[in-house]
Amino acid sequence: MDFHDLATRSGEWLRGNGPESDIVISSRLRLARNLADFPFCNRASDLEKREIEATFRTVSDDLEFGEDLHYLDVDKLDSIDRQFLVERQLISRELATTDGARGVAIALSEDVSLMVNEEDHLRIQVLRSGYSLQACWELGNRIDDLVEDKVRYAFSEEFGYLTACPTNVGTGMRASVMLHLPALAMTKQIDRVFRALQKIQLAVRGLYGEGSQASGDFYQISNNVTLGKTEAEILRNIEVVVPQIVQYERTARTELVKESKQTLHDRVSRAYGILCTAQTISSEETMHLLSSVRMGVNLNLIPDVNVGMINDLFIHTQPAHLQKIEGQPLESEERNIARATYLRRRLTNTSESAN
Amino acid sequence: MDFHDLATRSGEWLRGNGPESDIVISSRLRLARNLADFPFCNRASDLEKREIEATFRTVSDDLEFGEDLHYLDVDKLDSIDRQFLVERQLISRELATTDGARGVAIALSEDVSLMVNEEDHLRIQVLRSGYSLQACWELGNRIDDLVEDKVRYAFSEEFGYLTACPTNVGTGMRASVMLHLPALAMTKQIDRVFRALQKIQLAVRGLYGEGSQASGDFYQISNNVTLGKTEAEILRNIEVVVPQIVQYERTARTELVKESKQTLHDRVSRAYGILCTAQTISSEETMHLLSSVRMGVNLNLIPDVNVGMINDLFIHTQPAHLQKIEGQPLESEERNIARATYLRRRLTNTSESAN
Repeated sequence: MDFHDLATRSGEWLRGNGPESDIVISSRLRLARNLADFPFCNRASDLEKREIEATFRTVSDDLEFGEDLHYLDVDKLDSIDRQFLVERQLISRELATTDGARGVAIALSEDVSLMVNEEDHLRIQVLRSGYSLQACWELGNRIDDLVEDKVRYAFSEEFGYLTACPTNVGTGMRASVMLHLPALAMTKQIDRVFRALQKIQLAVRGLYGEGSQASGDFYQISNNVTLGKTEAEILRNIEVVVPQIVQYERTARTELVKESKQTLHDRVSRAYGILCTAQTISSEETMHLLSSVRMGVNLNLIPDVNVGMINDLFIHTQPAHLQKIEGQPLESEERNIARATYLRRRLTNTSESAN
Repeated sequence: MDFHDLATRSGEWLRGNGPESDIVISSRLRLARNLADFPFCNRASDLEKREIEATFRTVSDDLEFGEDLHYLDVDKLDSIDRQFLVERQLISRELATTDGARGVAIALSEDVSLMVNEEDHLRIQVLRSGYSLQACWELGNRIDDLVEDKVRYAFSEEFGYLTACPTNVGTGMRASVMLHLPALAMTKQIDRVFRALQKIQLAVRGLYGEGSQASGDFYQISNNVTLGKTEAEILRNIEVVVPQIVQYERTARTELVKESKQTLHDRVSRAYGILCTAQTISSEETMHLLSSVRMGVNLNLIPDVNVGMINDLFIHTQPAHLQKIEGQPLESEERNIARATYLRRRLTNTSESAN
C-alpha cells in the first residue's frame, strides 16, 4: 500500500454520491471483538499482543469477502503515516497512539478496515458514502461471520460479546452517520437537535470521533448503548432519527435561501474566494470555509464545483496528508502555506470542476 | 457632457501613470478668486449670484488654454448627479450642497474644473495624476491669468487676493497631494508622520477633503497657510515633505515584504479574492480591500492586474457612480449588491488585466 498514492486519491466514502449525500457524508459501522483465549489488550503481555496480532494478520490475509485486504504494521509506521491513516478515518486515534504490536488490514477502496490490538483485539470497521447504514451492517456482519469461522470470540450467553470497556459489551456495535449541518449551526438550532438526541441515548461527536471538535460543521451521530438491544434495534434507533435531522437541515437551508439568500450567497461565495486566493491558511479556517462552500455547492450557489472534490479537500488539507503530498515533514507554518497552495491548485484547476 | 459616459471612463488623474504614482495618486491645485464688484457669496443676493454665475460662464466659454470646458448648471442637477461630480473630485461637497445659482466648467480630460459660487465666486482647480504639483501650478496660474484678463479680481496690495474665508486670503492657493499610505497605516507609523506635518503647518485630510475620513488609506496633504508666503514658497513647503513621506512609505513596504512577506501576500491576495467573489459589499469594505490590492499590485504580489483599473474602482464603486452605471436610483442594500456585481465584472474581465 503506497501512502503517496493514497494521499492523492480518495476513499469510496468521500465520493459524495451516496444516498442523501448533500447532508449525510458517510455511514460507519464498527464491531468490537476479542479472542476468548487471550486477556484484553490492556492486560495482555507484549508476547500475547504479538500472538493476537499474528492471529488476525493471518485471518485477514485469508478473508474472502470480495475485496483484498492490505495489512499494515501500525507499530512500525512513523508518526506521520499513523496520523495519515487517522485523518483518512482508516484507524482510530487510539490505535495510532497506543503501544505495542498492532496493525490494520485495509481494503483498497477504503470501505473496510480491521484494526488489531486497539482497545479490543479486533475492531471491524465498514465505512460508506452517504446514508448507507444497512449496507455497512450487512458487510460488517458478513466479515464478522467469516472471522468467527476462524477464531473463537470472547462471548457470554448472558451479556453477548465481551469487550475491554463495559460500554461496548453486548453487540460490540457502534453505528454512526457523519452529517454536514451548516445551516442548523448557522441558525443556532443545532443545540436543540443535540439535546433531543441525548434523550434517546445517541451521542454526538466531531469529525474525528470521541473528544474531537465539530469543525467544518460535521457531526457524527452514534448509538451510546450496545447492551440489551439487538443490532437491528440499535440501527433502527438511528435510522428513525437521521431522516428527521436531514429534514431539519434541509428546512434550515431552504429558510436561509428564502429569507437571506443574498447574505448566504455572499458568505459561501466569499468563502470560495478566500480558499482560491489565500497564501497561508490554518486547518481550522479551511474546515470552516470548506463547510460554507460545500453547502453553497449543494444549494447551487457556486457553479462548476464538484462536491466530491470539496469532500476530498476536507481530508487532503489535514496535516499528515499535506506532508505526504509534499513528500516531507512540515512545521505548522509551512503546512499553512502548503495547504493554501494545495487549495489554490485544486480549486482553480478547471479540469476538475463541474459535476 | 454625458454623465453615463463619464461614469464608465476615468479622468486623467486616475490613470496611475504619473511620477511616483505607486504612492502619489494625484496632485491638485486650487485658487480662490472673487470679483471686485460683488459681495462674497455668503453676502450676495440671489440676483447678484446669478450675475456672478453669468459672468464666469461667459469667461469659461471663451477661455483658450488648449482644452474645451463644458459648463454645468450645478443648481439644476439632481442630487445623484451632484454627488457624482463630488465623487469624481470635479466639484466640492460645498458646491454640491449649497444653495442658489452656481456652476462648474469642466475640461473633458477632467484635469481642470472651474467652480462658480462655491465659498468664493471662482475656484480654479487643476488635478493631475501622480506627483505633478509644478505642472498643476503652471496650468492653474495660466488659467488664472487668462481669467484675470477678462474680470477684475478682489485684490488688496496689502493682503493679496481677498476671499470669503480669512484662511484663504493672500495667495488664495491650496496645493495638495493625495497619497496612498497603506504600509505606514498597517505598521502604525502614520500618526507620527501626521504630527510632523502639523508642526510645519501642513494639513492632512481623507479622500474627499475637509472632514472626510481617510478611507482606503488615502491621505490628502495640503498647505494650511495662504497668507504671507508666495505661491512658490507654499509649493516648496509641500515639495520638501512629500518625497520624504513617499520614502517612509516605500521603506515601510520594503520592511513589510522583508519581515512578513507571507502575511502581506496572504492579506493582499485574500483581499483580491473577496473582491472577486463577494455578492454584496459596503463602500467602506471595498475601499479597505482595494487599498490592500493596490499595494499588492505595486509590490508585484498580485499578477496581471492593472493599477489604473484599481484606481478607477475606488471612484466607480462610490454610491452615485454605481447609480449612474446602473441607470437608476438604488437604496443602500441595492448599491451593495450592484457594487459587488460591478467589482466581479471588472476584476474578472481578463481583457482588462495586465499592465
